Amino acid sequence: MVLERIQKENDIQNIAKDELPVLAQEIREFLVEKISRTGGHLASNLGVVELTIAMHLCFHLPEDKMIWDVGHQSYTHKILTGRQEGFDELRKYGGMSGFPKRNESKCDAFNTGHSSTSISAGLGYVEARDIRGEDYYVISVIGDGALTGGMAFEALNNASNLKTNFIIVLNDNQMSISQNVGGMSWYLDEIRTADAYTNLKKSLEKAIRKIPSGGDQIMNHLRKTKSSIKQLFVPGMFFEDMGITYLGPVDGHNIKELVRAFHEAKKVQGPVLLHVLTKKGKGYLPAEEEPSRFHGTEPFDIRTGKPLKKKEKDTYTDVFAKVMYEMGAKEPSLVALTAAMEDGTGLAPFHRKYKERFFDVGIAEGHAVTFAAGLAAGGLKPVFAVYSSFLQRGFDQIIHDVALQNLPVVFAVDRGGLVGSDGETHQGIFDLSYLSMIPNMTVMSPKNKWEFADMIRFAIGFTKGPVAIRYPRGTAYDGYREFRPAIEYGKSEAVFEEEDIALISVGHMFETAAKVREKLKEAGLNASLINARFVKPLDEERIAKLAEDHRLLVTIEENVESGGFGERVLEFANRMALDVRILNITLPDDYIEHGSVDMLRKEVMLDEESILKKVLTVYAGMQHEIAMKKGDQ
Amino acid sequence: MVLERIQKENDIQNIAKDELPVLAQEIREFLVEKISRTGGHLASNLGVVELTIAMHLCFHLPEDKMIWDVGHQSYTHKILTGRQEGFDELRKYGGMSGFPKRNESKCDAFNTGHSSTSISAGLGYVEARDIRGEDYYVISVIGDGALTGGMAFEALNNASNLKTNFIIVLNDNQMSISQNVGGMSWYLDEIRTADAYTNLKKSLEKAIRKIPSGGDQIMNHLRKTKSSIKQLFVPGMFFEDMGITYLGPVDGHNIKELVRAFHEAKKVQGPVLLHVLTKKGKGYLPAEEEPSRFHGTEPFDIRTGKPLKKKEKDTYTDVFAKVMYEMGAKEPSLVALTAAMEDGTGLAPFHRKYKERFFDVGIAEGHAVTFAAGLAAGGLKPVFAVYSSFLQRGFDQIIHDVALQNLPVVFAVDRGGLVGSDGETHQGIFDLSYLSMIPNMTVMSPKNKWEFADMIRFAIGFTKGPVAIRYPRGTAYDGYREFRPAIEYGKSEAVFEEEDIALISVGHMFETAAKVREKLKEAGLNASLINARFVKPLDEERIAKLAEDHRLLVTIEENVESGGFGERVLEFANRMALDVRILNITLPDDYIEHGSVDMLRKEVMLDEESILKKVLTVYAGMQHEIAMKKGDQ
Repeated sequence: MVLERIQKENDIQNIAKDELPVLAQEIREFLVEKISRTGGHLASNLGVVELTIAMHLCFHLPEDKMIWDVGHQSYTHKILTGRQEGFDELRKYGGMSGFPKRNESKCDAFNTGHSSTSISAGLGYVEARDIRGEDYYVISVIGDGALTGGMAFEALNNASNLKTNFIIVLNDNQMSISQNVGGMSWYLDEIRTADAYTNLKKSLEKAIRKIPSGGDQIMNHLRKTKSSIKQLFVPGMFFEDMGITYLGPVDGHNIKELVRAFHEAKKVQGPVLLHVLTKKGKGYLPAEEEPSRFHGTEPFDIRTGKPLKKKEKDTYTDVFAKVMYEMGAKEPSLVALTAAMEDGTGLAPFHRKYKERFFDVGIAEGHAVTFAAGLAAGGLKPVFAVYSSFLQRGFDQIIHDVALQNLPVVFAVDRGGLVGSDGETHQGIFDLSYLSMIPNMTVMSPKNKWEFADMIRFAIGFTKGPVAIRYPRGTAYDGYREFRPAIEYGKSEAVFEEEDIALISVGHMFETAAKVREKLKEAGLNASLINARFVKPLDEERIAKLAEDHRLLVTIEENVESGGFGERVLEFANRMALDVRILNITLPDDYIEHGSVDMLRKEVMLDEESILKKVLTVYAGMQHEIAMKKGDQ
Repeated sequence: MVLERIQKENDIQNIAKDELPVLAQEIREFLVEKISRTGGHLASNLGVVELTIAMHLCFHLPEDKMIWDVGHQSYTHKILTGRQEGFDELRKYGGMSGFPKRNESKCDAFNTGHSSTSISAGLGYVEARDIRGEDYYVISVIGDGALTGGMAFEALNNASNLKTNFIIVLNDNQMSISQNVGGMSWYLDEIRTADAYTNLKKSLEKAIRKIPSGGDQIMNHLRKTKSSIKQLFVPGMFFEDMGITYLGPVDGHNIKELVRAFHEAKKVQGPVLLHVLTKKGKGYLPAEEEPSRFHGTEPFDIRTGKPLKKKEKDTYTDVFAKVMYEMGAKEPSLVALTAAMEDGTGLAPFHRKYKERFFDVGIAEGHAVTFAAGLAAGGLKPVFAVYSSFLQRGFDQIIHDVALQNLPVVFAVDRGGLVGSDGETHQGIFDLSYLSMIPNMTVMSPKNKWEFADMIRFAIGFTKGPVAIRYPRGTAYDGYREFRPAIEYGKSEAVFEEEDIALISVGHMFETAAKVREKLKEAGLNASLINARFVKPLDEERIAKLAEDHRLLVTIEENVESGGFGERVLEFANRMALDVRILNITLPDDYIEHGSVDMLRKEVMLDEESILKKVLTVYAGMQHEIAMKKGDQ
């Protein structure tokens, strides 16, 4: 095994040239074997094995800074920096992260997770290096999908000023998670297929040289000029136009060619874009054939590529997919948007059926939000399906383009709350807060799959302004099916009405709240169980009523405290001087690492046991106070 | 007067061709005259007089949709749609907005204010039009400055798919508010100065034609090909590469040429970019010479161009400018960033002195934040000076790139709170909330100019994580100079300590709180006066102490309720079951229109009188309760 000789960073530089293809093969086998057991990102990692090997041959760690855009392609980098052992506990609680992490290795220069940040971060390192008079290379590796994110363009535009070396590797596999979209993608395509006109170029060059008077002179002029005529001889004029030297395209599975290209790139005094052509899933047939399914995969059977566990129950995303498909027929003005997440958000069936009413805008959440505002202004009913943590990219646009004009855009906010193995960057723990603070916004969250379906229909029918429905990753809760009163604007649902203690849960925390209620019953306490349904507007009438009938209100939400549902209740109770104790159960003011959602809930004390304990403690304290007061009198 | 014949939209179509230059002249005089008295955006509006005239000649309102990016160049559009009278009360409370507003005119297709949204919104209209089978034109007018915003690129990338007409006007004046930056700007420059190589192109073309065997054939091939060789003959290949037809460049002050270009643009079946060259401030010499000063101007003397009122006192921005300049010498790792707001944020002196440590990234807040994270990771101390409402564009990047890695980036959040005449889109009313919810973030706000200076120095010296300092637009408060204890992390300042009532103010609301305290004194009530200093972390020790000594705590902040300082206090008091009444005084859950800040504060009841009244009412209610209870016993 060549791989065994790699124990830490830079060890690869002692591997003989002719052993490198063997190493690549071993890494591929290692990745397939490990990920088939743990799950994780596969296709993207298989695509960059040779690219990563070449980088580790050409640069020295940790001095040189490698920044991996999104970061789900950094597994080979982790292997080559001595983290093989981490793969047994990949993305597990307490185990190795699936993304680069500065606190995991000094060879990880910058944390990533969201798209299109690597050029900005890399440029920061470059400028810092130059100002501090240091000497190292900075390499940002960005996919062609991530290049559809506007931030990448902002950074490219800004990098143009540089007079010192900055290497941007464009890892071009023609895909985001699924097929890449848009003008930039077509342009890259054109470069890929540049052979088609290479002959023409050659004959043109030859012809010019043959011109009796000054042909050679014209040619030399063309070579030297920075003008756009250079396009004739440089395929990546788009980048050259912005002041960025273009190199490539290079075969991303040919280590020798890659190493040669990196040596060339290192010589450039300024920003240089190295265009590398790779194949997602390379070397493992099932992943080559279905790169989108093997983007992020559950454990699978290596032989067949099939998932080990059969999915038994619908996820919330499945429910969304079905209702959107159904509503597409009923509501001709319904249009659906995704930012490069057609599969992840469940919009594929809608897309197949209503092709002209589906839009994949690329990894461009900001644009998606304002585009949706324009669609609504033009008389349509747009639904933007997006992951909670990615919608953070559209925060300003929701405030400025949607809510200010009170346009009826629906935000289907998937992956709200804890998401599990993707970790910090993907947890959807801020959404209730950042959405609730926006004027004119309505924020809902369903207790189970049936209510979710009702809410989607309700939101699509709602014409008075923007609505967000926030729901979690994973299996849709199918309990309490019989509790299904019609959705009424701004109204919560009283599932059980008792006295003394009221549990008020937001969205999927209903399941936990219901269990806590059972446990309280076992402890001899009857608690009311309220499903908030609306985070904004707050059902003030209900809260006022609950305060009359109960001594303790317990709010339960999977969101940070600040600006969340609990604080809305607190604010109302304070404003009205309601005579009731309130216990807000929320996530802590902290980032939450990767791990199974169940483990994470225990850690942050949002599991049934922890909540029960808190409620009992507070309640006991209240009993004690009462007893004390009685004693006083 | 030709202008008098324009009473409503489309009236311009009855103006004779030879009268149009007169009209343009009259509009310019009208604009200079009006804005010299009210203040407002001047230079950008003078630059697009002919462009707007041509648009109103070529399109029909309100059927066709004109979308003005940022919107500060829409004055001529307002004039041509019958809103001349509005200019007397431009940007005043209850008067006409300085930006397009759907609720102001049916000819305003989309509200704007922030940069780079117009292509996204326009594309929404286009798709809606096509899906609904309607027939109208959509024209998005975007400046070359706004084109540095990534959203514009996301939208262009997305527009490539179109098979129907969509006209994007690139209003190229080589400026954002100040000089435009970056690769795209150089590229546009190259097109502007294309004459330099026109001769070369011609001689090349001639040479090819002369080639004995097949010269003409090569030429024809070149003409037809969609490949990048077309670059030879099409200046805007950058856009063509993305699938967008490029037309231009056109002289933006020649109505005839503009009208011809629009007719050509209307024929394109797909997205078309019309490149129009304009001059900011055109026709008014002081504005032509100092377009940056006349971007947004106070009332001025038409003859000299000088402001009518002399600025007497420093603004907060001036204080920031001075301290940054001073700290630049003391702290060699200090670097400063702006997103196209060098003057507005006060970074110009720092720029002039420490050229290599200053970065203007263009209108690209998202990139700026992650770039700052990279600079900090590379060992520098970045300060990103940015307007509160624009930082909303970097929300995800603060969460994902700065705070998650706990990098010591300083956010100098200017224009926090109400900003006045720019209105809804520019009010900085969400920042305390969206910053406080982010883990690892420290949020400060100064009571006066002296404390502000101390806070900037403190933040620059702070190495443990990101810090935001939030301060308002306008004159820096210089009262209470003698109260200047050193900044201590997480600690508030007790300015006066009394009992019963405690006023706790955030940042610049201190001035109001101090006045309220005086009035309370007059009413016979002694109130404590606390300057919060830190919004996050909350000075819990102080709050606990205040709750012991007082019966009523009044928090005062110029921020929305949800997620603001008041709720932080409320949450702590609730968690600790503190026995104290709390009154949170905040902004309402609503967008706040334009007008003077004093007027707006009255409207939202954040002025001294309204606060006093609220405090007295609540206090009286409490006294009443006590009396009742005493009666009970």
